[in-house]
Amino acid sequence: MKEGQFITLEGGEGVGKSTNLTFIKQLLEEAGITVVTTREPGGTAFAENIRQILLDNREESVSDNAELLMMFAARAQHIQQVIQPALTQGYWVLCDRFTDATYAYQGGGRGMDISMIEWLEDRVQGSLRPDLTLLLDAPIDVGMDRASKRGKLDRFESEKVAFFERVRTAYLDRAEQNPKIIKIINAALSLEKVQDNIALSIGQLLDTNNAL
Amino acid sequence: MKEGQFITLEGGEGVGKSTNLTFIKQLLEEAGITVVTTREPGGTAFAENIRQILLDNREESVSDNAELLMMFAARAQHIQQVIQPALTQGYWVLCDRFTDATYAYQGGGRGMDISMIEWLEDRVQGSLRPDLTLLLDAPIDVGMDRASKRGKLDRFESEKVAFFERVRTAYLDRAEQNPKIIKIINAALSLEKVQDNIALSIGQLLDTNNAL
Repeated sequence: MKEGQFITLEGGEGVGKSTNLTFIKQLLEEAGITVVTTREPGGTAFAENIRQILLDNREESVSDNAELLMMFAARAQHIQQVIQPALTQGYWVLCDRFTDATYAYQGGGRGMDISMIEWLEDRVQGSLRPDLTLLLDAPIDVGMDRASKRGKLDRFESEKVAFFERVRTAYLDRAEQNPKIIKIINAALSLEKVQDNIALSIGQLLDTNNAL
Repeated sequence: MKEGQFITLEGGEGVGKSTNLTFIKQLLEEAGITVVTTREPGGTAFAENIRQILLDNREESVSDNAELLMMFAARAQHIQQVIQPALTQGYWVLCDRFTDATYAYQGGGRGMDISMIEWLEDRVQGSLRPDLTLLLDAPIDVGMDRASKRGKLDRFESEKVAFFERVRTAYLDRAEQNPKIIKIINAALSLEKVQDNIALSIGQLLDTNNAL
């Protein structure tokens, strides 16, 4: 059986990932595809426990190494329990954030050594990489405004503007380095235009996949 | 100020680590040393949360990579928040399990690639290594018998005998490779004899330290 396609949705805070995840799922299902939607960090009971530890606001400051290793621990579990089994069965997997988020948040935001992220990526993922990544990009103030309206901010959302600027820059750098996989979607446009652009990228992936 | 000494206590299940940790602490305090006692995985609120996730019995099988990365995530946090600050202040740190346990449980028990453990050890610990490690060693049946009397077994204690045989072998291999640091204490002897032997090793460390 042909393996499913692995699509990830990336972006900073408040760029509309949840809304557009649902939209992409519908697009794929209308094309007759079975879709598993999931998220990182998380996606299994064990990995959701890790997510909770990572997002909780706490007095204790969290070491960068601990944060990075927790992200990849959750990812290892998620891949083994959910992502790889689904892809092997021919299902498509649609994931709210994946390793590009680690490059953006821990690499860009925290300023961690990229070679450590690359090493962990290879060790934990083997050859698994997204087939398509949609990067929802918007100026920081747009996203922060939306995120703050959702209520209490988590440990990441509570970071300063400069942190989110570094995250955004790192995301855009990743897109520039991997233009075949990562498509930038301007998330500052109206929802209708954003979804037109998403539909275009998803349509191309479907075409390519049908042609194979 | 002179850095404190870092002592770790290692061994499988039911070899008497808790009892002897208290004994070592008393020995050191009688010698006028301020001792911070702690444990792994754990030692901070954040790292104890990780410990809980790791020890919980659960239906979901935990991937080896996730387990290993969680161990080092907890360790990174523990070193930054507790161990290194204490040593820098000149306090001695006495820790119930450390990285030798990772070599024994994840390397030996789970059969994971040692080079991955070595890489993480270097990245997470920098140059931090124990000054003295006391390895409490006993045949598996002795330890398992004691552990099972303590009540409900955790996810590690629930492993099979072959797992603990591999853990024990890996611990003994570590001791053979690092004879200057790791001292094997025969934990199958009477408590009195065990503690005589522990006191001997601690006495040597105190002598060396005073001579410096």
